[in-house]
Amino acid sequence: RPSLWEKEALARWMVHSLDWGVLTTISSRLPGVKPFGNVYSFVDGQCSNSTGTPYFYGTYLDQSFQDIRENPSVSLTLSEASLPSVCGGKASKSCSITGSNLGDPENPVCARLTLTGTLEQVPFESEEYAMAQQAFFERHPQMDYWPQDHHWIIAKLEIADIWLINYFGGAKILPVDAYYGAKLEFGSVQD
Amino acid sequence: RPSLWEKEALARWMVHSLDWGVLTTISSRLPGVKPFGNVYSFVDGQCSNSTGTPYFYGTYLDQSFQDIRENPSVSLTLSEASLPSVCGGKASKSCSITGSNLGDPENPVCARLTLTGTLEQVPFESEEYAMAQQAFFERHPQMDYWPQDHHWIIAKLEIADIWLINYFGGAKILPVDAYYGAKLEFGSVQD
Repeated sequence: RPSLWEKEALARWMVHSLDWGVLTTISSRLPGVKPFGNVYSFVDGQCSNSTGTPYFYGTYLDQSFQDIRENPSVSLTLSEASLPSVCGGKASKSCSITGSNLGDPENPVCARLTLTGTLEQVPFESEEYAMAQQAFFERHPQMDYWPQDHHWIIAKLEIADIWLINYFGGAKILPVDAYYGAKLEFGSVQD
Repeated sequence: RPSLWEKEALARWMVHSLDWGVLTTISSRLPGVKPFGNVYSFVDGQCSNSTGTPYFYGTYLDQSFQDIRENPSVSLTLSEASLPSVCGGKASKSCSITGSNLGDPENPVCARLTLTGTLEQVPFESEEYAMAQQAFFERHPQMDYWPQDHHWIIAKLEIADIWLINYFGGAKILPVDAYYGAKLEFGSVQD
């Protein structure tokens, strides 16, 4: 885990390390303007490769993908409390309610991250699709067995806004360029 | 954990057992109509008491509460993958990626639940406030130490719509009355 002061690297670490989050859309099922959150697994690459871009393995049968046909704006919300992950790493004491540390998922020191942007389908024949599919089948091996007739697609979050709380004092908005420029050094990451 | 066929009881069990989820609003910070998800701890009562209604311990300093001043529509999204919980229970094998079971948080058998409705502040002097505050301080003991000058409030989700996936075949919409009528028998719940 990067230092709490390296905010862009910490955000990159969360996107790379975590296995699932909540993908949020504007509901097309409910009347009025209402948000809809849905649990999604995601990857930003194989364990050995972080792109910084979250990819989703989904289908237009699902509510979230029906929603983005009407409004492609989405957010992806991640909590450090959802660790441990397939690629390693475990939740910090700041996230854990039980035990003497008295952490909590709502504790500002338990990092939470929301990426907002648009969800866009990745073309089937692209290198990007092949890369993301390989990452999904490595990190979410069950997906390789999911029914073909669901017409699975891979979509990615084009990040426009990065909102992070990982310390006291409120949320910080991180520049997208700095996020993609942050170095994520595998092996040197501290827990 | 209730049987997968007792869908209302399963939804009640998730709302009672889980410690945190993602609260989603319509963003008042970003231009256009965009969703915003934020990690929140919640309770529906003490471990020994399930009301079925999710309560949140928050402040108008936080983005989500600023959002609901403009549009009180929210959703709360829960994943069984976020277990274990303070009140007991652990994630089912269906949610766990590692190991021979090959579960996954996006596996339909790993239950995911989204409650949509409006977020409403609970009056400070009410019995409901005292009940919820006691539940927060029991199940999220760190909250008792949070800074008084943040002007903490308790808000509740007035549930209008219940969306659940806990098996193959897509989401089910559960009647709110049946959800509140479901019996959650403590001690008889199977893992």
